[in-house]
Amino acid sequence: MKPSTWIVNARPFGGAPMDVRVTGAVIDAIAPHGERQPAPGDTVIDGAGALLLPGFVEGHTHLDKTTWGMPWYRNAVGPRLIDRIENERRWRAESGHDAAAASRALALAFLREGTTRLRTHVDIDTDAGLRHLEGVCDMRAALADVLDMQLVAFPQSGVLKRPGTRELLDAALANGADVLGALDPSSIDGDPAASLDVTFALATKHGKPIDMHLHEPGDLGAFTFDLLLDRVEAHGYQGRVVVSHAFCLGALPDARRGALLERIARANVALLTTAPASVSVPPFRETRAAGVTLFGGNDGIRDAWTPFGSPDMLERAMLIAMRYDLRRDDDLAAAFDCVSIEAARACGFADYGFAPGMRADLVLVDAETVAQAVAMRPPRRFVMANGTPISPEFTR
Amino acid sequence: MKPSTWIVNARPFGGAPMDVRVTGAVIDAIAPHGERQPAPGDTVIDGAGALLLPGFVEGHTHLDKTTWGMPWYRNAVGPRLIDRIENERRWRAESGHDAAAASRALALAFLREGTTRLRTHVDIDTDAGLRHLEGVCDMRAALADVLDMQLVAFPQSGVLKRPGTRELLDAALANGADVLGALDPSSIDGDPAASLDVTFALATKHGKPIDMHLHEPGDLGAFTFDLLLDRVEAHGYQGRVVVSHAFCLGALPDARRGALLERIARANVALLTTAPASVSVPPFRETRAAGVTLFGGNDGIRDAWTPFGSPDMLERAMLIAMRYDLRRDDDLAAAFDCVSIEAARACGFADYGFAPGMRADLVLVDAETVAQAVAMRPPRRFVMANGTPISPEFTR
Ligand SMILES: [Zn+2]
Ligand SMILES: [Zn+2]
Repeated sequence: MKPSTWIVNARPFGGAPMDVRVTGAVIDAIAPHGERQPAPGDTVIDGAGALLLPGFVEGHTHLDKTTWGMPWYRNAVGPRLIDRIENERRWRAESGHDAAAASRALALAFLREGTTRLRTHVDIDTDAGLRHLEGVCDMRAALADVLDMQLVAFPQSGVLKRPGTRELLDAALANGADVLGALDPSSIDGDPAASLDVTFALATKHGKPIDMHLHEPGDLGAFTFDLLLDRVEAHGYQGRVVVSHAFCLGALPDARRGALLERIARANVALLTTAPASVSVPPFRETRAAGVTLFGGNDGIRDAWTPFGSPDMLERAMLIAMRYDLRRDDDLAAAFDCVSIEAARACGFADYGFAPGMRADLVLVDAETVAQAVAMRPPRRFVMANGTPISPEFTR
Repeated sequence: MKPSTWIVNARPFGGAPMDVRVTGAVIDAIAPHGERQPAPGDTVIDGAGALLLPGFVEGHTHLDKTTWGMPWYRNAVGPRLIDRIENERRWRAESGHDAAAASRALALAFLREGTTRLRTHVDIDTDAGLRHLEGVCDMRAALADVLDMQLVAFPQSGVLKRPGTRELLDAALANGADVLGALDPSSIDGDPAASLDVTFALATKHGKPIDMHLHEPGDLGAFTFDLLLDRVEAHGYQGRVVVSHAFCLGALPDARRGALLERIARANVALLTTAPASVSVPPFRETRAAGVTLFGGNDGIRDAWTPFGSPDMLERAMLIAMRYDLRRDDDLAAAFDCVSIEAARACGFADYGFAPGMRADLVLVDAETVAQAVAMRPPRRFVMANGTPISPEFTR
């Protein structure tokens, strides 16, 4: 019999102390603390009554853009979206930014803080071609034993404006990208129907899901969202589409928002939010009450777009709770769900959760309850990823 | 000659490396690194090129309410303001909460993170009388060598509804409170004119400044604000009043807001914001352009009201920057000003700043720029408060 690792005297979600047995990469037993005895040769890790959580899930980031671990990037860019896109393109050309190396540093930081699954959008454009994707693919392969990463082929400059983009996305989906990205079909491409048709043609050709950035405000965003939903229905893509940001849902009249949320629920489209403090966001309770999955992520972390963000998903859960004014313990636990079970469901990470048979992704922190972990973000006492204990050395 | 302490090779605000001489509690020389030599007997602290910042200023907190250092408080309270006020009163009665001990733990945490001046609102009510104030006064006296604290006599239940409150506030101002607090004269007291008249009668009797919590929304908040400004003008209280929160300024039609901001500027009333993500806030650029001081604070930290907040004022500066979508380096530095120079000006902390003759409150962190310090919130390498180096042991 293969030896196992036991994490003993740990409190799942703040409940009673349990012992958890991990064999290989899988949780294969959970029992009240002290009820079962480890076999000779098993490894025992003392949880010392700490809070036990499933590994965290980052639902939306951009590893390839980050300056993580590099000298501070001094941001002096203009305020418009196009300023930021052009600025980043210029900066990348001039700085010799190495997407693979930067991605790796940030991926390891995520791992150290307890994130074991993540979805990252990777720029595909006519300047860089597939270079970033290739770098991130190599990095993913090197860390595959511990980190489960989904790569989104992301057209940062839209799909229509720069000839050759479509072909690059096609190649990306054939060469390692798991998901097709998209960006503001109305405001970036200027032709939402054509833009969405290209997106769905590519996605269906490769049988890949879609994750669309939708920053478009209010009525424009709702208009684009409806065009997207038309195509979800036409192509039978229910349950295979994420819309990231969806600021528009925070800025519609109640009746229009209610109707749109109902349609989103029927199409089983999930919503990703970073819970930004400065723009409107999909309403928390109403979105969930409509049956729509709402999950969380950082978006970019310390890059040419933003100085903010953190690989600590407990911090993201805290920011979600603050954005939605969630203060009760049960509500803070719901914010934690956004960076764990809800994110796993929306992205389709299999075998996720704290139960026998699931992938052994576990985090121990010193906290009484999930709410306390979200508010305090204590240092990680222990992280296990896919059955492997993550030592601090591993992630340097 | 008295020996001095030199902090050498430190970069004030991220500029060129300087040497700073502190004698007693005062910065008495600043020179380019290496230009001057410490005298025999002086202590030399090597800044190693770190970023040097002035001590941070917490503009608005409630030390006496915190559960800092205590077991996690499980929050299951209802959503209304009155639910929260009643819940806290009940919790205090039942939990045996010790305002003095909790205050001290949190004050020391502030100090450890580099805050050397702070304004704390202390509950004065007919249940507790002056008990919290006495506890916080004792704590202040014990830490007076390092922490400069202003105490606000805060009527958490309003001034009109519970007979005896006025007399308690009067006694508080005679017994250690530096500032008179107030709370939503319209929505809490139901009689804004009478409530404000009581507040100004007490403040002028004692010659003390005013710091009013104003959560009232939109037009109601603006109405109350105008009533306050009438009295500022009538009593010559220009420059002596802070309005905390002022959510209403984020939710008025442009013309009404512009006119009100102009009047606030003329009355030299300062605005405190916690930069909450879930409610409207005074606009950042417009408020400052109008000549109104806008500064930052936590409000309550980990108490019966909120699980959030942190004694790290760099985190508050980050939340301010996120709330106002400040991403450029110069804008992040402006967010830092809110928890340093602007807070000191608004609260009237004297001898504040990085210049000869000023109080020696200094913080070293590993960062290239102020913006990086705000975004990354690095551990404090060194803290000096009122000329005293703060060792980790000191603050446990
Ligand atoms: Zn994104
Ligand atoms: Zn307050």
